[in-house]
Amino acid sequence: MITEQDNRFIKRAIELSEKGMDSQAGGPFGAVVVKNGEIIAEGFNAVTSSNDPTAHAEVVAIRKACEKLGSFQLDDCIIYTSCEPCPMCLGAIYWARPKAVYYACTKEDAAEIGFDDHFIYDEIDKKIEDRNVKFINLDREEGRKVFKKWEEKEGRVDY
Amino acid sequence: MITEQDNRFIKRAIELSEKGMDSQAGGPFGAVVVKNGEIIAEGFNAVTSSNDPTAHAEVVAIRKACEKLGSFQLDDCIIYTSCEPCPMCLGAIYWARPKAVYYACTKEDAAEIGFDDHFIYDEIDKKIEDRNVKFINLDREEGRKVFKKWEEKEGRVDY
Repeated sequence: MITEQDNRFIKRAIELSEKGMDSQAGGPFGAVVVKNGEIIAEGFNAVTSSNDPTAHAEVVAIRKACEKLGSFQLDDCIIYTSCEPCPMCLGAIYWARPKAVYYACTKEDAAEIGFDDHFIYDEIDKKIEDRNVKFINLDREEGRKVFKKWEEKEGRVDY
Repeated sequence: MITEQDNRFIKRAIELSEKGMDSQAGGPFGAVVVKNGEIIAEGFNAVTSSNDPTAHAEVVAIRKACEKLGSFQLDDCIIYTSCEPCPMCLGAIYWARPKAVYYACTKEDAAEIGFDDHFIYDEIDKKIEDRNVKFINLDREEGRKVFKKWEEKEGRVDY
């Protein structure tokens, strides 16, 4: 069931995609985070203007929303984004745990204008030793000693 | 071929994982970005202390390194991380395009101490309509109008 609110919020995400593009911030992508029927954070892609490859619209909006809520989770929040999230943003969404995501363009639409994240989806599925970027395992036992300390740590904050 | 430098840099990433944990910044994860044999940026997980679900060690280090280089790409850089990247960080790594990634702990080690990203890997592979978080397509045609404008935009910065 799509509501009048949903229509309004997805339109705002699309507006932001245009605003970011027109202001030379980055690619044509916008997103908003909504809680209790109100927008609590907005974002647009700012990769090229801020020299930050992680500044996708969803990541920007999630970071702002969490800052506003004083929480590292987006409990009961909904994300509206002008385009289906890339694997990085999808990961960010799962860590932030909103209750739903509305998106306008599909990843096929994005690929058509040169934003092809198909390569990344393919790479994620590969065995780590078969990836195009070389992944090399090193010093695992030293790393695990710190993990062991985490397990035994008193007063740790899980997430 | 593992070099003396590789051993040194992975040890630094592991040191940072412990430093972040001990200083209550977040989970036990550290990372460094190296260019021309020198560390240009360091990071550790700061999710819980900064209320930022995207503040994983790799994302923190990538953002700092790009800021330092004044570039949204990590050309000729190597990332050393104390643990195999989660899907979000993997996405960030592919967008940043370093030439290699060295990692100490595996994702199975991380799952053992409660950081299980298997769920996220599974979700990424699912069809969008089958995911646990609800994804709803809405207003695609409006979104595509902005994409069309991007295609026709003069002087746009591709990435």
